Amino acid sequence: MKNLVTPNNAYRLLNHGPTVLVTSAHGGQRNIMAAAWNMPLDFDPPKIAIVIDKNTYTRELMGASGTFAINVPCRAQAELVVQVGSSSGRELLGKSPDNKFEAFNLPTFAASKINAPLLQGCVAWLECKIIPEPHIQDTYDLFLAEVVAAQADERVFSDGRWHFEGRDQENLDKLRTIHHVAGGAFMSIGDAFKIGA
Amino acid sequence: MKNLVTPNNAYRLLNHGPTVLVTSAHGGQRNIMAAAWNMPLDFDPPKIAIVIDKNTYTRELMGASGTFAINVPCRAQAELVVQVGSSSGRELLGKSPDNKFEAFNLPTFAASKINAPLLQGCVAWLECKIIPEPHIQDTYDLFLAEVVAAQADERVFSDGRWHFEGRDQENLDKLRTIHHVAGGAFMSIGDAFKIGA
Repeated sequence: MKNLVTPNNAYRLLNHGPTVLVTSAHGGQRNIMAAAWNMPLDFDPPKIAIVIDKNTYTRELMGASGTFAINVPCRAQAELVVQVGSSSGRELLGKSPDNKFEAFNLPTFAASKINAPLLQGCVAWLECKIIPEPHIQDTYDLFLAEVVAAQADERVFSDGRWHFEGRDQENLDKLRTIHHVAGGAFMSIGDAFKIGA
Repeated sequence: MKNLVTPNNAYRLLNHGPTVLVTSAHGGQRNIMAAAWNMPLDFDPPKIAIVIDKNTYTRELMGASGTFAINVPCRAQAELVVQVGSSSGRELLGKSPDNKFEAFNLPTFAASKINAPLLQGCVAWLECKIIPEPHIQDTYDLFLAEVVAAQADERVFSDGRWHFEGRDQENLDKLRTIHHVAGGAFMSIGDAFKIGA
């Protein structure tokens, strides 16, 4: 059900601007947060840029591990995107459960090249290694990273293309990527169209 | 029909990940190109990040003027997005017409704080001043900029929110933002929904 995405097609997972979830892990701790401010940065090897506020627990785990994962959530997960986006993993430390995955009952699976867990139910996953650029990290909370592995849900991404239309439209609609505006207001991605040949 | 967008709401014009058109001008020359790789970088004062390839004519005009505009095109403009995205303004120099605006018959209006022309028919416009960061410009083609003015089409953006649903749905659908996947394949932004209170 999950297809590997070739490096030269990895940018296409983010090219249309979805809001994403960032997962990270270090020293037995792990976290997940929402991030609307992300974009591709290069084709092959694929690179991405993402903004991660310096006050977040994710930032701490990213800095310590040098890695993180981008998980592309879908319409069916919108509520959990708001949940993990409006709570801090740091505040759970020392409590039980001590992390958002258990607190919100989020099933994960292992990444192939990094330690961060990947969230089940998402429609794409990009494993990222941070490219050290301390000045822009410190000044703008801006991180650049190389995508070292990528996969996607074959029901909605294959042959290098998203396709959210087809038989069983009701279920495909639940797999559409979501695009945050502000304050819990989102839009799902809509109809596909093609210009030119 | 065009509303000013307050600085603290300017990020919301790009937060959902639309593909945009970049306009620029310097020394009597002007250009327009397409750019899918853009994102907000900060709230207030609003900043954005955008990738502009070093081979583009836009890059030359941006570098010379220190400014550029982000125009957010809509479904009705998809064909021209592909046209301006697959042609080079540099190749028109010395010819007649000598720029893409005339070659493609693109009507513009004046920006308020920069020289770049703004494209009529778009649904939002952000006037940007480049924040000089030569290392990441040279290494990654990555530009950071402060948004010094922003406006939007009040039919689809008001009170700090996009709203593409309403009476006269057929015409509102033509004003939906567009999100490029690859090679002329796009998706329109889809249905709005709200999570939480």
